[in-house]
Amino acid sequence: MLQLNRFETSTERAPRLRRVTIVGTGLIGTSIALALRGHGVEVRLSDFDRDAELQAAAAGAGVPLTERHGPADLVVLAVPPSRLPAVLLAAQQRGLGMFYTDVASVKAAVIDGARELGCDLEVFVPGHPMAGSEHRGPAMARGDLFTGRAWALCPIAATQVAAIKTVVQLASLAGATVHHLAPQAHDVAVALISHVPHLVSSLLAAQLTDADPVALQLSGQGLLDVTRIAAGDVQLWTDILTQNAAPVADLMTTMAADLDRAARSLHAVAAGIDPGELVSLLAEGNAGRARLLTSRSAGPVRVPVEQPAIIF
Amino acid sequence: MLQLNRFETSTERAPRLRRVTIVGTGLIGTSIALALRGHGVEVRLSDFDRDAELQAAAAGAGVPLTERHGPADLVVLAVPPSRLPAVLLAAQQRGLGMFYTDVASVKAAVIDGARELGCDLEVFVPGHPMAGSEHRGPAMARGDLFTGRAWALCPIAATQVAAIKTVVQLASLAGATVHHLAPQAHDVAVALISHVPHLVSSLLAAQLTDADPVALQLSGQGLLDVTRIAAGDVQLWTDILTQNAAPVADLMTTMAADLDRAARSLHAVAAGIDPGELVSLLAEGNAGRARLLTSRSAGPVRVPVEQPAIIF
Repeated sequence: MLQLNRFETSTERAPRLRRVTIVGTGLIGTSIALALRGHGVEVRLSDFDRDAELQAAAAGAGVPLTERHGPADLVVLAVPPSRLPAVLLAAQQRGLGMFYTDVASVKAAVIDGARELGCDLEVFVPGHPMAGSEHRGPAMARGDLFTGRAWALCPIAATQVAAIKTVVQLASLAGATVHHLAPQAHDVAVALISHVPHLVSSLLAAQLTDADPVALQLSGQGLLDVTRIAAGDVQLWTDILTQNAAPVADLMTTMAADLDRAARSLHAVAAGIDPGELVSLLAEGNAGRARLLTSRSAGPVRVPVEQPAIIF
Repeated sequence: MLQLNRFETSTERAPRLRRVTIVGTGLIGTSIALALRGHGVEVRLSDFDRDAELQAAAAGAGVPLTERHGPADLVVLAVPPSRLPAVLLAAQQRGLGMFYTDVASVKAAVIDGARELGCDLEVFVPGHPMAGSEHRGPAMARGDLFTGRAWALCPIAATQVAAIKTVVQLASLAGATVHHLAPQAHDVAVALISHVPHLVSSLLAAQLTDADPVALQLSGQGLLDVTRIAAGDVQLWTDILTQNAAPVADLMTTMAADLDRAARSLHAVAAGIDPGELVSLLAEGNAGRARLLTSRSAGPVRVPVEQPAIIF
């Protein structure tokens, strides 16, 4: 039986989102800013790369943040995971806003880092909008990047309900569907659905570096699809994978063993042995793909509060 | 220095393609038929599954083949690779056409099989249009499936030039670009660009069969793209992989070792060791993807006749 969690039973109301500061005007930060501007939210932009900040402003994502701006209702930190704790601390020390959230692809390491630096975790809602692109930078930003996508929120016990409600507003304005889950559960989930696929796609693409050009010219949409994400930013992805190394490593060990098993059964087939194992492997691939499509077409899963993964 | 090959220097002319018989009205066969119909070619359809044959005819792909039809200019055999030799022999024994071609994803095994059965190889042009879909059957067929795609032709020394020219016409009418290469070179190429990616995509998708539904709901376009081809027909793909087992097995062994290396370096990163190897791995993925895009945007590669891969 499902029960409502602390957030859902609360009658506390969050103030309407009027002023948002975006720190980090890359693809994700600028896309969030554009989505908010589409709803008339006042957006201030800040990036240590002044060019990126001005480019985002020129694209209509908001105005450059200045000393004259008062605290925002919400500060969105759209910086790589390894930089997040320090950027959160600096933002809080400057009093940039009432509440804070981030967009990093890993959550446990980010929260641990923020705690170690002494950030105020009560007003910080760890978040992860599940959209992106193999392209980067404000020029590739789109206000509809998050439309119909999932937006994971991973609050901890200390997180204020008003902070969570504010970030739920942000996700809703961006057109995303909010999923609440624990930081560790998030990290294991994204290892499976994002980080391992990224690495495997990279390894597949890496096989092409010294391929015969004729072979590459024969290729069709399948190869384009499976290698698209391999074009992702190396520095950002090194950061992501480093911050989530243990869960990704475990799954990669399993994948490596599965590939080895497939290779052995193919060598056996080449030697004239029955392809029975190949059949079950391909059938399991069919089943996994079907399950993915079914799960995605269903609404958000409601998680019982008793489940240890949910911690608020 | 590039030289012209036997086919290109020949002044022999192929008759214009007027009548084509398609044997096997699945996705590929019916799509070829639709493309030909768009150019006014008379198309006859034959499938051992009478429903598929009638469905293709109803879709405007041609008329069911009857005993009253005379020999076609070209017979296209769009059946799975393991069935090809027997179907070619039967078609030649019935005198279905002047020339024959196929669409199978593997070439060496198909040619060997046809030779062993005593097929007339002089009038048979082994071919492989490089397009498809994770969907199957005549209902999914499209007349533009091959537009802008590569169409590999793998004639052997015995193949008649007129037969090759006829199949070049077929590919051109379908909007495809012809690439000539030797059967073995083709099989090694498709192992790299199609068969290994298919297997790896299947193995990735297989990891999702018992995944937490919440994790699947968080997933984005990346996971959809890398697992799309995992939905491919199990029976057909078992057949393809079985017929090309040795080249696929070799590459899979390499991929398995690469994955294992990546897993080990991630475990090392989790233990606090420098992610240097991760960086080079991701960078190589970038390079492979970039090379793929560059090669595809270039025109067909002209292959010198001296190259042992080219056998006519």
